[in-house]
Amino acid sequence: MNFITFQETTLRNFTQAVFKKIGCNDEHAALATDVLIRSDLRGIDSHGVARLSGYVRLWEKQRINATPDIRIVHQTPTTATIDGDAGLGLVVAPFAMQVAISKAEKYGSGWVSVKNSNHFGIAGYHALLAVEKEMIGISMTNASPLVAPTYANERLLGTNPMCYAFPAGKYPPLVVDMATAAAANGKLEIAQRANKSIPEGWVQDANGNQATNPNELKQGGSLLPLGSDKDHGSHKGYGLGATVDILSAVLSGANYGPWVPPFVSFLEPPNDPVGDGIGHFLGAMRVDGFRPVQDFKDHLDNWISRFKSAKTVDPKHQVIIPGEPEYTFEQERKKAGIPIIDVVVNDLNELASKLGIAALSIP
Amino acid sequence: MNFITFQETTLRNFTQAVFKKIGCNDEHAALATDVLIRSDLRGIDSHGVARLSGYVRLWEKQRINATPDIRIVHQTPTTATIDGDAGLGLVVAPFAMQVAISKAEKYGSGWVSVKNSNHFGIAGYHALLAVEKEMIGISMTNASPLVAPTYANERLLGTNPMCYAFPAGKYPPLVVDMATAAAANGKLEIAQRANKSIPEGWVQDANGNQATNPNELKQGGSLLPLGSDKDHGSHKGYGLGATVDILSAVLSGANYGPWVPPFVSFLEPPNDPVGDGIGHFLGAMRVDGFRPVQDFKDHLDNWISRFKSAKTVDPKHQVIIPGEPEYTFEQERKKAGIPIIDVVVNDLNELASKLGIAALSIP
Repeated sequence: MNFITFQETTLRNFTQAVFKKIGCNDEHAALATDVLIRSDLRGIDSHGVARLSGYVRLWEKQRINATPDIRIVHQTPTTATIDGDAGLGLVVAPFAMQVAISKAEKYGSGWVSVKNSNHFGIAGYHALLAVEKEMIGISMTNASPLVAPTYANERLLGTNPMCYAFPAGKYPPLVVDMATAAAANGKLEIAQRANKSIPEGWVQDANGNQATNPNELKQGGSLLPLGSDKDHGSHKGYGLGATVDILSAVLSGANYGPWVPPFVSFLEPPNDPVGDGIGHFLGAMRVDGFRPVQDFKDHLDNWISRFKSAKTVDPKHQVIIPGEPEYTFEQERKKAGIPIIDVVVNDLNELASKLGIAALSIP
Repeated sequence: MNFITFQETTLRNFTQAVFKKIGCNDEHAALATDVLIRSDLRGIDSHGVARLSGYVRLWEKQRINATPDIRIVHQTPTTATIDGDAGLGLVVAPFAMQVAISKAEKYGSGWVSVKNSNHFGIAGYHALLAVEKEMIGISMTNASPLVAPTYANERLLGTNPMCYAFPAGKYPPLVVDMATAAAANGKLEIAQRANKSIPEGWVQDANGNQATNPNELKQGGSLLPLGSDKDHGSHKGYGLGATVDILSAVLSGANYGPWVPPFVSFLEPPNDPVGDGIGHFLGAMRVDGFRPVQDFKDHLDNWISRFKSAKTVDPKHQVIIPGEPEYTFEQERKKAGIPIIDVVVNDLNELASKLGIAALSIP
């Protein structure tokens, strides 16, 4: 595996050109690009430009609408349901979060459930939009079914991530951004490529037995919920995945459970949909709706200091503050550039050739 | 172990007499009783009348105020911070949820962070108050430190439960009510009493090694977050526990992390508090703030039907809908009575004798 390091701007210009070429207006192209590049900057390589050709394939299949009319279809002062009009989740979710933020500005909090959307990138991006406004940001999305609930031998839930982001003072924002499965699909793909076995507790095979071969997922197996098995609390991971599914889709009118359309274009969506597209849930709460912002930040800083200096099992591993590794990546990669694996670079350049735009210039 | 079965009313009258005897007014005594009895009805025996003498011991130490002046100290139309005045969490949390509900009635949603409180019983009780009003209920609380974050060899978080409750149509409410540790302390106590070993992944010993002896927790060990180890996502359980701690305490001005005062009266609270008492976080969102209630219920019923009928690994274990076992217990125990283990009956009658009230009449 070889990596080629690109400056952020090079990747931005390329990605924006792709989104414009499929018909996104300038604003939407810039926004969708920002979500993907920020993922790469933050070290979450699985959700950045590596997915770009996947979005384009969904657009080719007319499952993504490049010129959506995103609109509020139901609301109260602090709640809303948004119809994403089959747009890119990368555009629909930030729109929805802005609605949540403006409701919070007026009334203290804002909550938006979204239907008829698509994959929204990293949950953290959207939650951090609220943090910039001195708010607590919450974001969730459902996703195509890969996870078997406790006792099930069937994929009924996506890896359904949830994110909570909090503004700190002298420290970077504290960002809990997690799939509700024991291990997200990206980790399996890495093991599949490297032909390595995986720990028990990530996957069950087609018969519902624990599997250590990462390919079992492609052969009728399922991912397992956070907790891995009943003894270790997999019913809790299942409950969290269910919560995300209900807030994102049962509440908005999107598809849920096994009806969520797949992200990959070669799999067709179920032919008996129970709603529109996939769903998200976004929320914002003003910190100063509860206490003065500086008081909150001082105490969150104190919380972070205390946890960072905790006694550890092994001196090589300090306690990690949620969101800190991503923040460190972001500072480094903004300066040193973003390493992209060669298979992704090739994929992007095939995409460029297909769309008739300039290839990525190799530095 | 022997169980004695009491009618609900017998336990209610007894519990109410205890709370009145320590100085609670009639309303508070009835409310605190309702929280405990509902826990026993729902089969969560660890959080019901088994805890009654624990609350009284904290009152004896003047760490619980039986006549609190519970008040809103900061608010916007949809957010509030409440000072529980060191009252019973069993009374403070329902008060806070009523504030959240009345804000939601006006503006669509309501969110309340609580400081200066005590143990609030089962999280599900409070969330279900919102469900009765056709709202989604959310409740969380921090708790005294027992859990070591990933890589830590120190207890920094409580088992910090979170609960999400949703109104269904023909089915009972869907209630996700879970500790963010791999196994809650109650499960360990059962293993300790039975002198049985526990699975790896629940506890680490004083050196940070995986332990299967449940007594290691009392000998300097720690509970582990949901996920159990880094490979299986313990950083996610740690992140969830952190989220509960921040929303409940950093946001309200309660104690957080290792500063949370212990529930047991024989351990003194830290002498360098960073806030007041323990903290909770409660929220309510009107379902019809997003879509008509009947549409939501119809789809949630469909979700539940689909999951209940899922293909299973083992025909003996159907997929369980979160909250369904507790609902079944509640229907059964309302009719057949509540079985209480003899050690708890003895404990309650010692309490009666100490307080000078009538003993529980053994049926």
